[in-house]
Amino acid sequence: MNRNFKLTIAYDGTRYYGWEHQPNTDLTIQGKIESVLEKMTGNFQEVICAGRTDAGVHAKAMTASVILDTKQSEAAIWKYLNKYLPDDIVVTDVKEAADRFHPRYNATGKTYCYTLHVGKNKPLFDRKYVYHLDKCPDIKRMEDAASLLIGEHDFAAFCSNPRMKKSTVRIVDSIKVEKTGDYIYLTYHGSGFLQHMVRILTGTLVEVGLGLRTVQNVQDVLLSKDRKLAGETAPAQGLCLVSVDYS
Amino acid sequence: MNRNFKLTIAYDGTRYYGWEHQPNTDLTIQGKIESVLEKMTGNFQEVICAGRTDAGVHAKAMTASVILDTKQSEAAIWKYLNKYLPDDIVVTDVKEAADRFHPRYNATGKTYCYTLHVGKNKPLFDRKYVYHLDKCPDIKRMEDAASLLIGEHDFAAFCSNPRMKKSTVRIVDSIKVEKTGDYIYLTYHGSGFLQHMVRILTGTLVEVGLGLRTVQNVQDVLLSKDRKLAGETAPAQGLCLVSVDYS
Repeated sequence: MNRNFKLTIAYDGTRYYGWEHQPNTDLTIQGKIESVLEKMTGNFQEVICAGRTDAGVHAKAMTASVILDTKQSEAAIWKYLNKYLPDDIVVTDVKEAADRFHPRYNATGKTYCYTLHVGKNKPLFDRKYVYHLDKCPDIKRMEDAASLLIGEHDFAAFCSNPRMKKSTVRIVDSIKVEKTGDYIYLTYHGSGFLQHMVRILTGTLVEVGLGLRTVQNVQDVLLSKDRKLAGETAPAQGLCLVSVDYS
Repeated sequence: MNRNFKLTIAYDGTRYYGWEHQPNTDLTIQGKIESVLEKMTGNFQEVICAGRTDAGVHAKAMTASVILDTKQSEAAIWKYLNKYLPDDIVVTDVKEAADRFHPRYNATGKTYCYTLHVGKNKPLFDRKYVYHLDKCPDIKRMEDAASLLIGEHDFAAFCSNPRMKKSTVRIVDSIKVEKTGDYIYLTYHGSGFLQHMVRILTGTLVEVGLGLRTVQNVQDVLLSKDRKLAGETAPAQGLCLVSVDYS
């Protein structure tokens, strides 16, 4: 009996080559989950996700789906997965979904958070989940620059591989910049994001905050559609997929 | 010019065999710090701490001292240490201290926190710093049992090696039990703690919370001075030395 299941998955991406299968390694999130499900059902089934994360990127609530030929309950599948998955991947929810449910095509929005650490001392217990800056960027400048990016735009300048995509137009609804203690959280919400887009946006906004480029320059970069004019790609370890929206 | 320095140190104890030197390994906190200081000054000097932590135990603010023959400033020493220490040890402060300052003899109190995780899902990003329980213990029962341990007592029943100590009498000022979301924090403050004492107290209080022993039994165990009657030693990974007091 083939049934479609929606999985919600949290993972520490530190030691993985990203979500998607890679040749010559079993260190991918997709690969680990598929192996456990194959062990459970005896059949290989592809686990589809809402959007592949890059090597080193984390997730608090990735959404994925898989068709399983099983009579097992949601709770039993959930329990089995967490029993056999390594301790840096946790399935937080398993729900049977409509046959037509597709985690990528049905997604209406995504939230990503990039975490910067700006204390005098290096971060310790969360050192694998933040990016440490020696100097604290100006939050107001970052907010002003971020506001220029809100809306529907061609984000080609903030994409590491624009030719791979049919369209580089995306809608960014909001970019929140919040400083709490020694941390700066950049929270992005939008319809979808291009390859490395959140990390390039973050790298560019940090450069604005540090005074290495003007606020207005961010608009010039956006209009140029030229990746070379944008900032550095911020390191993967500070990025986390927070949630995926479905209507 | 010999000067005495007080160091405040945070560390992730996961991969270390504890604070103290061990034969045949350089994976100790003390060893790592001494190596960097020897590299800096050209001379070996012992780094003394307020109280050795066991293998796998963490610290937010261990206090230590070291006599250095150096003209370098506090800030220069701090910077050098953090440049060469591995990223799971961070020196958060360096201050020149009186010659007679001794981090163990002068300590007037210590705070330890043991963190339990009780959510439906296993912990993820902090999985190396908490101990996961499948069932949630009763907080009120733990608090009631904890209150029986407050004061000056012979804690021999809660010490893994009572013969090593001249006296197993200690003063425990407070044990706070707080549940916040999926976490239970047991915060201990006292004059000092015996070997494994906080972990055995925690293991025993958890057993009370889970209904495996009565509240009153904790007092019987205390009076028995018999380690075999107390609970399991809770795993090292949930324990963190929070701070050391000096008057």
